[in-house]
Amino acid sequence: MAGYYVNPHVKGCTRVFPGQGRYGYYRYDMNENPEGLPGWFVEKVLAEITPGFLATYPEPDVFLHKYAAFIGAGYGNVLATNGSDMAIRYMLEVFCQEGKKVVTASPTFEMYAVNCSILGLVHVPVSYEEDLSFDVGKLLDAIDQDTDVVVLLNPNNPVGTAYTDEEADAVIKKAEENGAIVIIDEAYHYFYDRTFIKKALKYSNVAVLRTFSKLFSLAACRLGVIISSEDIIGYIKKSKLTFDANAVALKFAERAIEEPGLVEWLVSNEKQGKKYIMSRLREEGYEAMDGLGNYIFIKTHKTPQEVAERLKEEEKVLVKTFSSPLLAGYIRVSTGPEKAMGFFMDKFLKADC
Amino acid sequence: MAGYYVNPHVKGCTRVFPGQGRYGYYRYDMNENPEGLPGWFVEKVLAEITPGFLATYPEPDVFLHKYAAFIGAGYGNVLATNGSDMAIRYMLEVFCQEGKKVVTASPTFEMYAVNCSILGLVHVPVSYEEDLSFDVGKLLDAIDQDTDVVVLLNPNNPVGTAYTDEEADAVIKKAEENGAIVIIDEAYHYFYDRTFIKKALKYSNVAVLRTFSKLFSLAACRLGVIISSEDIIGYIKKSKLTFDANAVALKFAERAIEEPGLVEWLVSNEKQGKKYIMSRLREEGYEAMDGLGNYIFIKTHKTPQEVAERLKEEEKVLVKTFSSPLLAGYIRVSTGPEKAMGFFMDKFLKADC
Repeated sequence: MAGYYVNPHVKGCTRVFPGQGRYGYYRYDMNENPEGLPGWFVEKVLAEITPGFLATYPEPDVFLHKYAAFIGAGYGNVLATNGSDMAIRYMLEVFCQEGKKVVTASPTFEMYAVNCSILGLVHVPVSYEEDLSFDVGKLLDAIDQDTDVVVLLNPNNPVGTAYTDEEADAVIKKAEENGAIVIIDEAYHYFYDRTFIKKALKYSNVAVLRTFSKLFSLAACRLGVIISSEDIIGYIKKSKLTFDANAVALKFAERAIEEPGLVEWLVSNEKQGKKYIMSRLREEGYEAMDGLGNYIFIKTHKTPQEVAERLKEEEKVLVKTFSSPLLAGYIRVSTGPEKAMGFFMDKFLKADC
Repeated sequence: MAGYYVNPHVKGCTRVFPGQGRYGYYRYDMNENPEGLPGWFVEKVLAEITPGFLATYPEPDVFLHKYAAFIGAGYGNVLATNGSDMAIRYMLEVFCQEGKKVVTASPTFEMYAVNCSILGLVHVPVSYEEDLSFDVGKLLDAIDQDTDVVVLLNPNNPVGTAYTDEEADAVIKKAEENGAIVIIDEAYHYFYDRTFIKKALKYSNVAVLRTFSKLFSLAACRLGVIISSEDIIGYIKKSKLTFDANAVALKFAERAIEEPGLVEWLVSNEKQGKKYIMSRLREEGYEAMDGLGNYIFIKTHKTPQEVAERLKEEEKVLVKTFSSPLLAGYIRVSTGPEKAMGFFMDKFLKADC
């Protein structure tokens, strides 16, 4: 038996990590861009990665100044993290006290619940309705004096619904009355073009999280950004690692936001691809839901598990299934350019027949 | 006033981050390799970085299997982190209870003390002697029932001394008797070729930290490794982010450890360069100390601050100075290949005359 101290919350955690060996498959399971950034752009940025650049510790400030301008905020309102994975960790570590509550929709991005168990916080999940609509009134009711953080994924994942302006305002107000911070996770921004950044800059208790893993197709690099008041950013700076986001991620992200037309090209590719596959699915008589992120849900003829298994084994294609009863009849499929969706559709029809 | 909760330890922290804009200087201040990896090697690895690779979430396992074999450990004994910055954070978060003690030499790598203040731990610094020797007896005396973690940097930074086998064993034993874990930070391994990895695999309470920022010249990428018992690695896995080390770092590291002769080439370049500059300094009548890492200390004629300032302003060269009285008369200079050291020497002689 180990005689040393182990944090009891950590000791009690059960973790499941994503499967390895995905490079050998066509990946439609984790909301990555199936095709990625344009080859010419990647080559251009890689040309800046020299031995001297690699040997030098990262500097976030050039990127942060440009990013702040890009989203209409100030340098003091933004902070770069090692993926939004780390942004979520920082937010909960700094702004939530052990034993206090973190209120989220359910299902939602699973790392909120996982971080609650690692950090000894009480996760309060507010369930979607059976018709996959979400009642914000129930979320408001769940916010009380013991609540330190409320999380809105906008749009949510896996269920791709969004909050209205009025709903977000009501949540921010109720949170403020209860001394709680609101995290607005905009991982799927750009696929869904409305943002609550203005609220993060206006209210003292709101932080927006963004990632470069989805639209910007840089999941390999790990880059997240927190956008909030100078006070909230200042507190996170006190608690952060010295070197957080790496220099390769920062360089790609800097070049991506200043490349004319790149964001629009990525958005329009995804929207065309999603429209195309939804129309193909309808033609084939499938029931499908196109959420507001870069993914759709398809109600399969065979069980989702069987389809996912056949796609993987016979076609080298990965998709996601769910254990949550609300989503048990569906597979989730990442969306990207039309060509990638045509490729998927052919494989899918073979697997679900 | 913010109505929300802020972690009181974090609130009380004062942080200083490295200066930005270092790319425009010759960098001898942060123990980076002044020349970096060979150009042909960097090009070869960059050729593997495709749009599809960048869009895909990182997979640490291929690297970890190879790295474990490389150091003679098992897959269950190793874990990749976002720099050893994150390895230190995990170790202290998981294995040190709020209010308990972390014993280190002093001066040592500053992030141990910083993380103590962020996490509400009690940092117990054990000072070097005035002649820059270190009395391990005093470190042993500092370990008590309230100690959760003991840190040995081997070799230490900034003072480049190392612990003997017997000293390390005595520390591990005293720590074990007091229910404490020993972190052996081998950031400067390879410049100094003795390692305590075997102790990490043998004793239940020892973890070795390694980084790819120093010898491997990949500070930009952020990659650290924790080497320990399966139990300790297992606990950290419970507390870690889903995606920690990024895929670019993992790819470079994987290729670096399997490139025949690369490690030896990097080590021999640094040793030649260090020998060369020490000899030049002696010829010029300078008192200098060559520690066991990739850095030396030079006792300057003018004040270290003045020399550092002139080097920066007039020669575009960065070096490090210290406020600690023990090191107040010195500048610290990163060492690398002979050519880089010759370049430095010329600039230094101009600035310190």
